[in-house]
Amino acid sequence: MNLPFSAVRAIIRKRDGGSHPPGEIEAMIAGFVDGSVSDYQMTAWLMAILFRGMTRAETTGLTRAMIGSGALLPPWRDGPPVVDKHSTGGVGDKVSLALAPLAAACGLRVPMISGRALGHTGGTLDKLESIPGYQVEIDPARFESIVDRVGCSIAGASEDLVPADRRIYALRDVSGIVESPPLIVSSILSKKAAARLDGLVLDVKVGSGGFMRSRGDARALASLLLRAGRDLGMRVEAFLTWMGDPLGETIGNALEVREAIRFLKCEPVAADFSLVTRALACAMLRVGGEGRRAEIERRVDSALASGAALDRLRAMIAAHGGDPRVADDPDLLPSSRRVLSVRSNRAGWVRRIDARAIAEIVVDLGGGRRRVEDRIDPSVGVVLGVRRGDRVGAEDLLAQAHIGADHRGDRLVERIREAFVISPAKPRSIPPLIEQVSR
Amino acid sequence: MNLPFSAVRAIIRKRDGGSHPPGEIEAMIAGFVDGSVSDYQMTAWLMAILFRGMTRAETTGLTRAMIGSGALLPPWRDGPPVVDKHSTGGVGDKVSLALAPLAAACGLRVPMISGRALGHTGGTLDKLESIPGYQVEIDPARFESIVDRVGCSIAGASEDLVPADRRIYALRDVSGIVESPPLIVSSILSKKAAARLDGLVLDVKVGSGGFMRSRGDARALASLLLRAGRDLGMRVEAFLTWMGDPLGETIGNALEVREAIRFLKCEPVAADFSLVTRALACAMLRVGGEGRRAEIERRVDSALASGAALDRLRAMIAAHGGDPRVADDPDLLPSSRRVLSVRSNRAGWVRRIDARAIAEIVVDLGGGRRRVEDRIDPSVGVVLGVRRGDRVGAEDLLAQAHIGADHRGDRLVERIREAFVISPAKPRSIPPLIEQVSR
Repeated sequence: MNLPFSAVRAIIRKRDGGSHPPGEIEAMIAGFVDGSVSDYQMTAWLMAILFRGMTRAETTGLTRAMIGSGALLPPWRDGPPVVDKHSTGGVGDKVSLALAPLAAACGLRVPMISGRALGHTGGTLDKLESIPGYQVEIDPARFESIVDRVGCSIAGASEDLVPADRRIYALRDVSGIVESPPLIVSSILSKKAAARLDGLVLDVKVGSGGFMRSRGDARALASLLLRAGRDLGMRVEAFLTWMGDPLGETIGNALEVREAIRFLKCEPVAADFSLVTRALACAMLRVGGEGRRAEIERRVDSALASGAALDRLRAMIAAHGGDPRVADDPDLLPSSRRVLSVRSNRAGWVRRIDARAIAEIVVDLGGGRRRVEDRIDPSVGVVLGVRRGDRVGAEDLLAQAHIGADHRGDRLVERIREAFVISPAKPRSIPPLIEQVSR
Repeated sequence: MNLPFSAVRAIIRKRDGGSHPPGEIEAMIAGFVDGSVSDYQMTAWLMAILFRGMTRAETTGLTRAMIGSGALLPPWRDGPPVVDKHSTGGVGDKVSLALAPLAAACGLRVPMISGRALGHTGGTLDKLESIPGYQVEIDPARFESIVDRVGCSIAGASEDLVPADRRIYALRDVSGIVESPPLIVSSILSKKAAARLDGLVLDVKVGSGGFMRSRGDARALASLLLRAGRDLGMRVEAFLTWMGDPLGETIGNALEVREAIRFLKCEPVAADFSLVTRALACAMLRVGGEGRRAEIERRVDSALASGAALDRLRAMIAAHGGDPRVADDPDLLPSSRRVLSVRSNRAGWVRRIDARAIAEIVVDLGGGRRRVEDRIDPSVGVVLGVRRGDRVGAEDLLAQAHIGADHRGDRLVERIREAFVISPAKPRSIPPLIEQVSR
């Protein structure tokens, strides 16, 4: 018997552990968009999904239904492969800032739709806005034109790109329904598929500074993303990367832009940041269908050494209305007048730098957001003086805090010092790139 | 650390299997009432409760918080014990119509706040409205005055009695969150406690026509109701009664009023209806603290035999603006002009009369509601000609359908016949009163 769609029947079906028959998920999303399914029915259903999960087919169906809720980007004109990277978000993760120009310099088109900081995770858009004049909110036509012309653009999503995801995410965020793999997957992939990508590289962070604390959970999420992305017709590679410690040496908006520029200028940077960025660039070329492994690594090295990647950053900044001279002179970026040094009070080995704790400190300095409406101070942040596995003596510099002129600094030095776990024995090393998830 | 209340933190706590600390449930309900907790946060929390359950302390806390959301009835003036009965709802369940006057005739005060039919379960208020003139919506002052003066009143809840329950129930109903024991318990008991009862008798139905299909589930619900009711300071008894077959011989509003009047007039009625009503009356006297067991049964018999119980019905109808002559002349009730007889097409024993199927047929005849706004025809219904365990010959009368003048009657006779399961062997008997749940 083919009953007409009923939202309450659909909710009860998922609640009781059933699978949605063809069309039911689509009817739920369409009803939500047209108002016949209410917000409170939606959160009841999403909470049931959080408890019961979704099959692979349901996850793909939900993603497709969300894609269908709004306008896709128009098809790309003939040209280089269109590839993007998505990270689940971390602390000090400035990879996108360096990776988009690097991949563009290697011959890809990179339409990178990014987000803002909220809670302890930073946002690529906020980092870019520390560049004087850079506009992250641009209309879709300008976004596509920049991608076609420059090779890369990093911008915010337009209002009509997957509106169902925008509204559903807002509900999940305030209703305790964020941590559900099928909901995370459909949210990420609907936006990527609506941008008509040929290929996608996924960077799933593992550790206290990321979203997934355990390697098993992160691997399961990566695997679901990989399979659903392939179901949607994209070539996909997925990686687990370490986010127990901050990535690179800087945490804070303008500070991270500086570090990304140093990388593109081939100046010395932290090994983990360089390694992850290069590995993801190679993966983007692979999913773009560009050449063999050895040849790909050579192309990435050459794009850096020749200055082509830095050139793409300069061009992208200019195309977004920003001051392209920052690529050559990072001192044009906002900087803080007050820098506090944090020194160790014991000798030993740096066993861990608590990424989550450092992130909370940077938010408290004004470098992040507790609420969507909070304003960000781009100049503040923390620069690490040592990294995990380094040996420190008593009184050695651990970090420098870049703070606002009127910051009271209560317990700041102590809080930063407490984020460094110093132990008498050398800790085992953790590779920045933990593994590639292949299925 | 005592953090300020956060709805999303409370939702996540329950979602992850935790217990709410003191004050958190109260803050959730207060926030919902004042609008700072939204409908979609409420359904997310309720769905998490459905999956995770609640401790006894949480259940009592939720009930108290709901009671605190509105005005209680004013304290009763000195006088007889104030006792009510609550049933989880069934098919042909006209017990309240007979029980309230009977308990009043035995010396109790019975402020019975009842509901309307929805879906397959009938509603006591709809049954009473088949009495010409009977007003079920009366203000609280008149309700209390009738209870004090007559001894019983059956009426609808006023808008300001436990408003949180009213709003939460409306959300649960359309969001697939009805079947949660702690939510059921808090919904029932908040309204009973707000009526300041001394004692409460609970009738939890078991079988296809009721809410709980299995005896284990029904017993668990009865036990939770019993314990939470006692936590709230009421004397409580709880019973499981059989609802796999309809209760009594009639299903339909005016038809059930007739059957209740026959019982109060000491005319012959179905044994199950009589037995359950008498047992619940005795229990009401016990929770009211009235005398010893043998003496109680004698009082109930005497209230029936003397006509005192019928007299209370007459007085209650008059006090509600209804025509009290129906108590003596039930032909004043609406009746249908068209009666179809349904005969068996085989000989054997009646093994089962599917209560749910009969209820759905009566709704289709116009005797119930699919939606809140549906209008009811009080005259329609089904009168059973045989009961479970009876022997029937081929061509014997199974039931009579009382139908509206313009009813098309498609497949009606077949549908009613199919609700009767006739088998070659005599079925085992099921007692109408399955058990008393004592803890």
